[in-house]
Amino acid sequence: MSKRPKVVIAGAGFGGMQTAQSLARSGADVLLIDRNNYNTFVPLLYQVATAQIAPEMIAYPVRTILRGRQRARFMQAEVRRVDFEGQMVETSGGMVTYDYLVLAMGSRPRFLGVEGAADYAMPLMSLEDAIALRNHFFECFEQASRTLDSQRRKALLTFVIVGGGPTGVEMAGALVELVRSLKRDYLGLDWREVQIILVQSGDNLLINLPARLGRYTTRKLLRLGIKIFFNTKVSRVAEHSVVFEEDTGDRHERMTETVIWAAGLEAAVVEGTAMSAKERQQKLKVRSTLQLEGYDNVYAIGDLSYVEQDGKPLSGVAPEALQQGVTVAKNLEKQIRRRPLKAFGYFNKGRLAIIGGYGGVGKIGPVLLTGFVPWLMWLGVHGVYLPGFRNRLLVLLSWVQNYALSDRAIRLTIRS
Amino acid sequence: MSKRPKVVIAGAGFGGMQTAQSLARSGADVLLIDRNNYNTFVPLLYQVATAQIAPEMIAYPVRTILRGRQRARFMQAEVRRVDFEGQMVETSGGMVTYDYLVLAMGSRPRFLGVEGAADYAMPLMSLEDAIALRNHFFECFEQASRTLDSQRRKALLTFVIVGGGPTGVEMAGALVELVRSLKRDYLGLDWREVQIILVQSGDNLLINLPARLGRYTTRKLLRLGIKIFFNTKVSRVAEHSVVFEEDTGDRHERMTETVIWAAGLEAAVVEGTAMSAKERQQKLKVRSTLQLEGYDNVYAIGDLSYVEQDGKPLSGVAPEALQQGVTVAKNLEKQIRRRPLKAFGYFNKGRLAIIGGYGGVGKIGPVLLTGFVPWLMWLGVHGVYLPGFRNRLLVLLSWVQNYALSDRAIRLTIRS
Repeated sequence: MSKRPKVVIAGAGFGGMQTAQSLARSGADVLLIDRNNYNTFVPLLYQVATAQIAPEMIAYPVRTILRGRQRARFMQAEVRRVDFEGQMVETSGGMVTYDYLVLAMGSRPRFLGVEGAADYAMPLMSLEDAIALRNHFFECFEQASRTLDSQRRKALLTFVIVGGGPTGVEMAGALVELVRSLKRDYLGLDWREVQIILVQSGDNLLINLPARLGRYTTRKLLRLGIKIFFNTKVSRVAEHSVVFEEDTGDRHERMTETVIWAAGLEAAVVEGTAMSAKERQQKLKVRSTLQLEGYDNVYAIGDLSYVEQDGKPLSGVAPEALQQGVTVAKNLEKQIRRRPLKAFGYFNKGRLAIIGGYGGVGKIGPVLLTGFVPWLMWLGVHGVYLPGFRNRLLVLLSWVQNYALSDRAIRLTIRS
Repeated sequence: MSKRPKVVIAGAGFGGMQTAQSLARSGADVLLIDRNNYNTFVPLLYQVATAQIAPEMIAYPVRTILRGRQRARFMQAEVRRVDFEGQMVETSGGMVTYDYLVLAMGSRPRFLGVEGAADYAMPLMSLEDAIALRNHFFECFEQASRTLDSQRRKALLTFVIVGGGPTGVEMAGALVELVRSLKRDYLGLDWREVQIILVQSGDNLLINLPARLGRYTTRKLLRLGIKIFFNTKVSRVAEHSVVFEEDTGDRHERMTETVIWAAGLEAAVVEGTAMSAKERQQKLKVRSTLQLEGYDNVYAIGDLSYVEQDGKPLSGVAPEALQQGVTVAKNLEKQIRRRPLKAFGYFNKGRLAIIGGYGGVGKIGPVLLTGFVPWLMWLGVHGVYLPGFRNRLLVLLSWVQNYALSDRAIRLTIRS
C-alpha cells in the first residue's frame, strides 16, 4: 500500500483507549481525539465525589499511553460533527479526514424529560461532575453547621440519589461512610438530621444482577440508615426541592439542596448521524463486526453502540468496551489487509457491585457472592485495572488511610 | 471571668492557623474564618502550576487542625467588612461579634496600574491560580501541537514571567523543567520555538538577598535557556500580547498567550479600615505588640501588617507570619489576664530560594550558599513544614518520581 491508512478514534474512554493501544503494531496512522487530555477511570468517580481519593489519581494523561509511538497522535478537541460521506470529522480544533473512523464518545446523562433535572440534578459521569459533587457536599455541611433555621438545615443535610443501579447504590453507601467520617469535624451538628434517600423506579435494586443480590443490597443499605423509595420516580427537580411520584400516583415534595442523578444515560451521538442508524437510548446500530450499519469504514463501540448478546443488550460496563476495543483493532487490521472480519462476542468474567460499609455483591459464573468478599474483590479488581503504577499506589495508600483511620483527606472545596 | 472571651481570627493562612493553634489552651472561644475550607501551603504553589504535585497535596483541611477542640470553631465565609467600633465582622455567612480580632487575610496581587494586567495576567497566589496556570500551560502545548500558523504557535510557546523575586525565579526554573519533561509527549513540536522570558524592573534578581546570590541566580537561569530582560517593566498586557518598556524608554511588543504575574502583592485590607491605619502597599500600621494602631483588641499579622525589624520592613515570608501568630496568641492570653504585652521580634533562621535545574541559593546567618545544597535544603525544609503526614508522604513520592523519571504525572487539564 503506497499510503498508510489513517484511523481516527473519537473518544479516549475505555473503548477508544483500548482501540488505540491495540492498534500499536498495525502500521496505521492513528489519531485519537478527546475533549480531555486524560482518560478517566469512571468506576472510581464516586470515590472522588465522596472525598476518598483525589481527582488526579483516576486521570491518566492520554499522551502517556501513546508515548514512544511515532504513528499515534493525540488531539485535544471536541468532536462536533461527522461527515460520513466525505469521511471528515469536524472538531473544535479543525477538520480531520479519515480512512477509518472509530466512534467511542461514550454517553451522557439521560434526564428522561424530568422538569428541572438538567438544570438542578447533579450527574456523576465525568471528573468535573465528581469534583463538583465533592465541593457541593462540603458546602452543604459548612452551611448546615452555621444555619440556625432548622428547615434550611434539614434541606442542606438531605441527599437524594435518583437511580438504584450500581452508581446510585455505591453513591448511597459511600455517602454514609463520608457522613460518618465527618462527625469529628462538625461537633455541633445533629446527625439525626442527615437523610440519604435512594429513589428507584422499580421494586428492587441492581436489576442487571440476580434479584437475590438486589434484595441483599436493599437490606444492607437500610441497615446503613439509607431510606429507599421503591416504585417511585422523580417528577420534578427545583433549586431547593424535589418532587417524588409513586406508582400509585401519590406525589410528595421534599426540600433538598442535593439531587444526584444516577438514573441512566444515553449515547453521546455525534451530529451527522442519520436517525435511521439509531437504536434504543440513541445508541448506534452496529453489525456483529461492530461496523456501523451502512458504513464499512466506521465502527462504534462502548456506550455509543447497541449490541446484543444472547438476546439481551450489553449492560454498559467497562470490560465490554475494552473487549470491543480489542475486536475493533483486530477488525481494522483485517480490513486494511482485505481479510474477512470477525464477529464480536463478549466474554463475561462476572459482575461485581460495591455497596459500602464493607459490603458488596457479585456474580462470577453461576456463583452469587454477598458481603465482605465481593467488597474486597471490587476494590482489588479496580485497583489492578486502574491505569498507571503511580495512580495505583496512591489510590491504595488512600484506601488504607480511609479504612484504617476512617478519615477523608480530600475534604476540600477546590474550584478552578 | 464570668464569660469566656471570644477571639475571631480572619484568615486561615500561615498566620491565622498558627494563632488558632497557639490559642489551643488559652481558655478563649476561637472562631476561625476563611473563604476556603483548607489552609494552602503557598510555597509549593509553583509546583502545582507546573504539574509536579497535585493540588490536594498542599491543601490541608482547616477542620482537621481544629479537631478535638470544643472551644475552636471554623466558619467558611468571605470577610466583607469590619465594624471596629461595634466589634463586629460582616461575612458572607452573617454577622459575627468579637471581643478580640486577629486580622490575617494575607495579600492579593498588586497590578501597579498596568493596563490589562488585572484581566489578562495570571497571578500565582491561590490554589485556584495554580490550577488555572497548570490547565493553561497544557492548553498552550496542545494548541501549539496542532497549529500550522507559525506566528500563532510561537505566541502559544512564549511564556512571560513578570517579576524577578522568589516566585518569578522558581516559576521560570520550574517551567524549564516542565518543558523538558514534555519532549516525549509532543514529538512534532520544534522546541526551539519555546521561549521563557523573565522580566525584572531592576538590574538583579532576588533583591531581598545579597547581590551575589542574585547574580548566581541570573547565570543559572541563563544557562537553563531563560531570557532575562533587566531594567524592564511591563506596561501593557493584552489577550494575545504584552508590551515591555525598558528604562531607556524603548518599548517593544511580544505576542504571547501567557503572562504570569509575580510582580508583587498588596495587603488584602478589609473594608472598614480607616485610611489613617494604612502604611505602604496598603499594609496596616501595627504597634510593636502587633496590635492595630488605635485598637487595643485588634491584631494584624502576616502580609496584612507593616512591621519593621532593624529599620527594614519584613519581607513577607511564611516564618514571619508563623512567628507573629505565636506572639499574637501569647499577647491575647496576657491581655485576657490583664498582664503586660510583649513586643514582636522576628528570629531569622535564614533564607532559601529555589531556582530549578538542581540549583538554589540561600543565606544562613552570614553564610551564603549556592547550587545543589540550598536546592536540596529548600525541598527538605518545605517537605518538613508541609502540614499533614499524608501530604508530606505524597509530595515526597511525587518528587522522587519527578526527579528520578523526569516525569510529570499531573499533566491534566481538569476544570471544575
